[in-house]
Amino acid sequence: MSAPHGAEGSGEVAEDLGGGRKRTGRRPGVTLSRHAILQAARSRFAEHGYAGASVRAIANDAGVDAALIHHFFLSKEGLFAASIHDALHPEAVVEAVLGGKGVRGTGERLVRTFLALWEGETTARQMRSILRSAASHEAAARILREFITQEVLVPIARTTGRTHPDVRASLAASQLVGLAMTRYIVEIGPLATLPQDDVVACVAPTLQRYLTGALPAPFDA
Amino acid sequence: MSAPHGAEGSGEVAEDLGGGRKRTGRRPGVTLSRHAILQAARSRFAEHGYAGASVRAIANDAGVDAALIHHFFLSKEGLFAASIHDALHPEAVVEAVLGGKGVRGTGERLVRTFLALWEGETTARQMRSILRSAASHEAAARILREFITQEVLVPIARTTGRTHPDVRASLAASQLVGLAMTRYIVEIGPLATLPQDDVVACVAPTLQRYLTGALPAPFDA
Repeated sequence: MSAPHGAEGSGEVAEDLGGGRKRTGRRPGVTLSRHAILQAARSRFAEHGYAGASVRAIANDAGVDAALIHHFFLSKEGLFAASIHDALHPEAVVEAVLGGKGVRGTGERLVRTFLALWEGETTARQMRSILRSAASHEAAARILREFITQEVLVPIARTTGRTHPDVRASLAASQLVGLAMTRYIVEIGPLATLPQDDVVACVAPTLQRYLTGALPAPFDA
Repeated sequence: MSAPHGAEGSGEVAEDLGGGRKRTGRRPGVTLSRHAILQAARSRFAEHGYAGASVRAIANDAGVDAALIHHFFLSKEGLFAASIHDALHPEAVVEAVLGGKGVRGTGERLVRTFLALWEGETTARQMRSILRSAASHEAAARILREFITQEVLVPIARTTGRTHPDVRASLAASQLVGLAMTRYIVEIGPLATLPQDDVVACVAPTLQRYLTGALPAPFDA
């Protein structure tokens, strides 16, 4: 995926985007517009899913022209990706799981961080919307796929120094995505209602094994 | 869920359903209608999902009156449940996993049977449609929830004779549903493209532990 303009939130742009303010290198108006767009996108995507949220409606909510969204994010897909990034802060997730804490306990910290996102006041609706969108729409699935593996799980799997980080990351994804589906979407009991600590105790060993254990043949044997 | 009329496919009905044939106790015409409805439902649900398939269209495909569908299955929800039952044969799944084969290897047989359904010529589209529908629609989620736990995983977990079969079944569901989401829907590599045997080798130990291992406190400790 090519990086959309302003994807890192620098607020620096080459062109004049209207408003006629004097260029200063860093333009607070642009940063504010970008922020307003991401806020609006986050809310629209959470409420209507990927397919139901239109770029036009998001532009309207943010009080900007739709062309500005295309300028910053290239496409609805780029906006969805930036919105996920903005809502979930993958670097913070990776930091919470690794954070110089050593390989032991990685599985437990990963499950705990994941549950916190799904049950956090500002992130719960996002997580639901992202997973539901990915289940129905290829574009959303593609973004979730890249986000999960490249931005979160492959970096975590790499840091443990074990073989086949990509295989490990996708196995970890299978347990985490399934945990979310059964606990929050399909709501299969008792997993849907167990306290977080009990879920962590049951599921963390699976993540620990996927991330750090020996893989079966043909991988490690 | 109350059992809809004819849910077990007996083809026995008390009323005259038109056509004026003489009652014989078992009525081939009714059995044929029920079969035609289920075939049509299976195809419509697979192609359009739970929300997109209408009872009217299914009745039309099956060449019956929509009232007959309500007579047999009570509601669209009942028809969806019967259609899943008809497509996936939960007793056969349970038999394939247990089948007097002992507790050892239960996890492996369960993953193998599950992958066979997802990659089987006649069942792959159904599995996709069911999971996608459950991700978006509460009625479909409720039916999947009951199907997975009550018809397949709780019976399997019970047979192993271990503690907390309901907790074990929901943990197993979390790994199986997540495997399906990552391998077939979101298509997270390399898990999406690994040969079945490699997937079984990686994931079976998780299912075996959930179904037969010691559960952490507060369950077994």
